[in-house]
Amino acid sequence: MAADSDYISEFISFAHVLADAARCETLPIFRNAAVVSNKAKGSDYDPVTNADREAERVLRKLIQTHYPEHGILGEEFGEREGKSQWRWVLDPIDGTRAFVCGVASWATLIALECDGEPVLGLIDQPFTDERWVGVMRETRYKRSDNEGGCLTSGVTDLAKARLSTTDPRRAGFFNLDEERAFARVAERAQICRFSLDAYGYALLAMGELDLVIESGLQRHDYAALIPVIEGAGGVITNWRGEVAGTDTRGEILAAATSDLHREALGVLGAQG
Amino acid sequence: MAADSDYISEFISFAHVLADAARCETLPIFRNAAVVSNKAKGSDYDPVTNADREAERVLRKLIQTHYPEHGILGEEFGEREGKSQWRWVLDPIDGTRAFVCGVASWATLIALECDGEPVLGLIDQPFTDERWVGVMRETRYKRSDNEGGCLTSGVTDLAKARLSTTDPRRAGFFNLDEERAFARVAERAQICRFSLDAYGYALLAMGELDLVIESGLQRHDYAALIPVIEGAGGVITNWRGEVAGTDTRGEILAAATSDLHREALGVLGAQG
Repeated sequence: MAADSDYISEFISFAHVLADAARCETLPIFRNAAVVSNKAKGSDYDPVTNADREAERVLRKLIQTHYPEHGILGEEFGEREGKSQWRWVLDPIDGTRAFVCGVASWATLIALECDGEPVLGLIDQPFTDERWVGVMRETRYKRSDNEGGCLTSGVTDLAKARLSTTDPRRAGFFNLDEERAFARVAERAQICRFSLDAYGYALLAMGELDLVIESGLQRHDYAALIPVIEGAGGVITNWRGEVAGTDTRGEILAAATSDLHREALGVLGAQG
Repeated sequence: MAADSDYISEFISFAHVLADAARCETLPIFRNAAVVSNKAKGSDYDPVTNADREAERVLRKLIQTHYPEHGILGEEFGEREGKSQWRWVLDPIDGTRAFVCGVASWATLIALECDGEPVLGLIDQPFTDERWVGVMRETRYKRSDNEGGCLTSGVTDLAKARLSTTDPRRAGFFNLDEERAFARVAERAQICRFSLDAYGYALLAMGELDLVIESGLQRHDYAALIPVIEGAGGVITNWRGEVAGTDTRGEILAAATSDLHREALGVLGAQG
């Protein structure tokens, strides 16, 4: 890894500052029927998208103030090129549909890349007060006074795996081939859970899920997940076993162990 | 309603005692990899089923001590006939698959029936510290210091509805006809979320979801949901618009409003 570890400890603190700032924008809107009902009444005002944008504005301003040389890539306001090897990748509300349905599986995603490689990843769930931070090959979990290291489950067989994807239907992110490939894996897995968005990767990092398979993800959806999964001992690639992001479909395969990853890759790639 | 309201206020307090007791059995097992990993190692010992059974044992004992005349129906230990009009219906861990995947959408369900009609329903999620209680046509929500009444969303059009089911695939609870009927509704709804089990009905009661459609439910899965949904102003029936439980499939349709319920019934029942 090219990153200097002296810088990194400062950047970890700063990532927490960013996540705390995002909470101030997102949490007051979550399950706030009085605010959200404006939309149902036919107004064009969308409070969730508004909170997402407002949070990204706040985070970009903090970064530009503290690290004016750093690049920024955000879901809502795109790319701001920097003059250093560092770039922050931001998604204040990953899982907007979960958010508007009152389900606490949405998350704030913050990644820091060094020369294009994610070296720090943060996943924050404000309602449950949970935060995962992966950096320097270590992932830590914090909830209230409960803090500790994360380790993936060690499950090596697909038949024993707890699998998750956000939507198993073509109506979601999958095309027809992907829908069929996912169904082949799901048939062989032990349990299948849906609709978790980034929260599924956080559960994988802490050993509660064993396999997450998705498609249609963008850089801001998965950059933060890479250090979190790898820091907990898991494997995260695209559906061909290559570095995540090196295909045109945004396909992601994350597994608790390399054995499970290999088996899932084989089933995804099988003809049928 | 046949129930005497003097009795009811005492039974509400007792339902809270039961839910608190269940938390003591379930919460220490949730996300406890050290305990759950015994199972992955090939042992027959299943800590989650064990916690489910142990919690039900504790609740049954509490009921038998305080109300020896009352009947009990529990998921794990079946029916104990009573000598009064009252029967408690218990499911200490609804959503076992969510539980073993670390997802906080499992719930403890406690219902009290009077002459076979559910008059009190309690949904408890210990990890997020959330509890919903529906009784006497009123539903209340409590989380930490935050307490208040629940009201469904008021959404009347399927096109604007946030829909949920636990598993949209035939591999889950649906048969082929049900899978197709659900898909027809899902195509017309605004958003679709999965894997929420009883928690989906709790979100419907507080106005965060608008429609929940499921099948394959048993008495202990839905008895507690009825007072919670109705107390918040919603409608809950089977897929033919009849009282829940009066079909052989365990089909449940819950909606925020009677207009939305009627539209969903029509689409479910359409040929196609």
